[in-house]
Amino acid sequence: MGTNHQPLTGFRDFAPRERLQSRYLFEAWTRVAQRYGFSEYEAPVLESAELYLKKSGGELSEQLFRFEDKGGRDVVLRPELTASLARIAAAQQRDYPKPLKWFEIGRCFRYEKPQRGRLREFYQFNADILGEPSASADAELIALSIDVMRELGFAEGEFVIRLSDREAWIGFCRDHGIDDSRLDGFLQIVDKIEREPEEKLRTLLEPFAINLETILDFISGAGPQCSENLQAVLTDLAARGLDHFTEIDLSIVRGLAYYTGVVFEVFDAGKALRSVAGGGRYDSLVSTITDGSSDLPATGYAMGDCVIMELLHDTTGPLSLFQAWRQRQATCDAYVVIADESKRLEAVRLANSLRQAGLGADYPLSPTKVNRQFKAADQTLARFAFVVGSEYPELKLKNLNTRTEETLAAGANPIDVLRARLDEPDGPLLA
Amino acid sequence: MGTNHQPLTGFRDFAPRERLQSRYLFEAWTRVAQRYGFSEYEAPVLESAELYLKKSGGELSEQLFRFEDKGGRDVVLRPELTASLARIAAAQQRDYPKPLKWFEIGRCFRYEKPQRGRLREFYQFNADILGEPSASADAELIALSIDVMRELGFAEGEFVIRLSDREAWIGFCRDHGIDDSRLDGFLQIVDKIEREPEEKLRTLLEPFAINLETILDFISGAGPQCSENLQAVLTDLAARGLDHFTEIDLSIVRGLAYYTGVVFEVFDAGKALRSVAGGGRYDSLVSTITDGSSDLPATGYAMGDCVIMELLHDTTGPLSLFQAWRQRQATCDAYVVIADESKRLEAVRLANSLRQAGLGADYPLSPTKVNRQFKAADQTLARFAFVVGSEYPELKLKNLNTRTEETLAAGANPIDVLRARLDEPDGPLLA
Repeated sequence: MGTNHQPLTGFRDFAPRERLQSRYLFEAWTRVAQRYGFSEYEAPVLESAELYLKKSGGELSEQLFRFEDKGGRDVVLRPELTASLARIAAAQQRDYPKPLKWFEIGRCFRYEKPQRGRLREFYQFNADILGEPSASADAELIALSIDVMRELGFAEGEFVIRLSDREAWIGFCRDHGIDDSRLDGFLQIVDKIEREPEEKLRTLLEPFAINLETILDFISGAGPQCSENLQAVLTDLAARGLDHFTEIDLSIVRGLAYYTGVVFEVFDAGKALRSVAGGGRYDSLVSTITDGSSDLPATGYAMGDCVIMELLHDTTGPLSLFQAWRQRQATCDAYVVIADESKRLEAVRLANSLRQAGLGADYPLSPTKVNRQFKAADQTLARFAFVVGSEYPELKLKNLNTRTEETLAAGANPIDVLRARLDEPDGPLLA
Repeated sequence: MGTNHQPLTGFRDFAPRERLQSRYLFEAWTRVAQRYGFSEYEAPVLESAELYLKKSGGELSEQLFRFEDKGGRDVVLRPELTASLARIAAAQQRDYPKPLKWFEIGRCFRYEKPQRGRLREFYQFNADILGEPSASADAELIALSIDVMRELGFAEGEFVIRLSDREAWIGFCRDHGIDDSRLDGFLQIVDKIEREPEEKLRTLLEPFAINLETILDFISGAGPQCSENLQAVLTDLAARGLDHFTEIDLSIVRGLAYYTGVVFEVFDAGKALRSVAGGGRYDSLVSTITDGSSDLPATGYAMGDCVIMELLHDTTGPLSLFQAWRQRQATCDAYVVIADESKRLEAVRLANSLRQAGLGADYPLSPTKVNRQFKAADQTLARFAFVVGSEYPELKLKNLNTRTEETLAAGANPIDVLRARLDEPDGPLLA
């Protein structure tokens, strides 16, 4: 280690300034999930390797933090949350009314080459509906995905939901002689169409004896008529006034093998970044994971914290919304300034009584010049400062925004006065 | 895996009911930390093994989830948070005013034999003050540790803070010919005095050529006079009116090697459980971890989620406080009952407009009998239900607590009416 204070490659330290950004995101995610009637759950970070190998297939299994624990168990740091959710839902579904509407905000781990928007440790917000096979559940999640973007301040026209249906591709494969065992491999190629050069795609398609043009024609011919489920989703979204946030785009198939029906991804309007969020129906996953002992139709949505925070910082409206929120994150209501060090214990007692009353209070832990104490008060974003000086028990209360002050006589209750002042509007600074 | 839906041994699934307990605890921790002026940070879950081997010593290094990642790095799942904190504080201290008052709520991992109050994955709340050498910082953390208990509803007499000072033991060792290199080993034995049988303790003490009685005499002779720092801590706590929550008890030394001064542990009054929380001063850790390139005096406090939740469930006051809180955790403000399935889209539109207004709303995703919908509404703890039936756009609004209802004429704004009703007191059920 030496003097290397860095975290591992692809991992992040969240000092308070960075943590505040995560907190902003988590609170927005939680607000939207709760408005939509989702309940929070949390799965272990470490799971048996079998659980995730069984499920994800493809790329993910090569990106696992996988090891043997001291008891000889083959374990992984979860690369995403869905297999754990399916496991828990299968075990506990009898204790909850159906459908389950569950959400989680948790850390996930993938051993990838760290790059813009992709790290080895990241947060993921998942919202899933289990036990409801109809398109109304898909529509509910797509509506939620739109509202997450709006909650963060993204306006109409700044993002788009690209909707697709794996069933359309299952039909396409049937029509072109690609049997079920090769479906997943084929869809992995479709998933790459926007990212890989044409030449590479043609090579990848050779074993399937199908032209790139045939695929592109199928994608460009897509309309709302292409799938009954997509039509039902659009009708539902139209009733909510949200259909104009979406476009049908069959090139969206999602990377993971377990999707079975409607799938969708959220993109910034310029499509400059990889997808910001995505989801879809996975009706057989619970059955796969439990070897058929449980079965629950399901549909899910997930957003990571990396791409959305980049997009937020690149977009005027959402950024100023975040900055305004950050300005309100005072770590205390009143800073207690000790103007006379001989009154330290009286100041500590005052801070303590403010805290007992549920108010946030801070004070200098060691003798500090008064002007440095006011600087410290500013740094906490405190709105008020009490000054404890030689005239104690008389106190001064300063409004740090308006720079006005008042004197509290010895008999006054500082808690009541501060409460009253905190309830008052504060002039132009908080306007 | 087969039909085994269980998490790994020593790991927990938090379905919504269990998650609500964690949420309660996290919110209490956060409220107290913020009242005390602490800012939240978060460290990676995975760290270089060297960071934790360098620091913790002893027992912890045998309980690590340790492995080699795909890039050949020797890594561990963090067994606690302090080494990561010290690393981050050393790297970023210049960007923050001193002292740093930082807190974190995060998952930690120890490969132990799972038992009551000890699991392999657990949450830990840490609050640390870095950059302040005086006893006022220790007092601040001990006050916080008392307020965490009170915030959770534990009353005076239901818990006790046992205070000690490693400096007293350093003096004891000097007086009894135990040199610095053997100090840590000796304190590991003192740490076990309450837990191990006398015979075992005598055997362990043999290499130190010291009687168990000499140690017990030293512990029982302890009083506030025993250390200048402890005296300063007690004076500070007395100013806050909190000194009667504490007792001097030199048998407390804390298990980890890095403590240097005042240490403390929180116990239930009956001392039936292992310590509920603990902490202490660790003035050389930042220097150790950075090979001397940074130096910050520091003191910290940590509480895990396992023992405190056991204690909470065993104690009447805290348990009823939690239960009352849980009763208020409605997942929605209004459930939209679809009494006429032909009005489904109108109901979805209503739910959507409630959500847009910031209210929590839910509704059945598929056709459901009306009485089952009301049951579902009760399960969400919703206070109100809108009924969308054949008379739409006329709506019924039912108060699910008082079982009263009113009719909203076609022109009424359901959002305004619901907002007004939510602001009204609700009769005996919410009294």
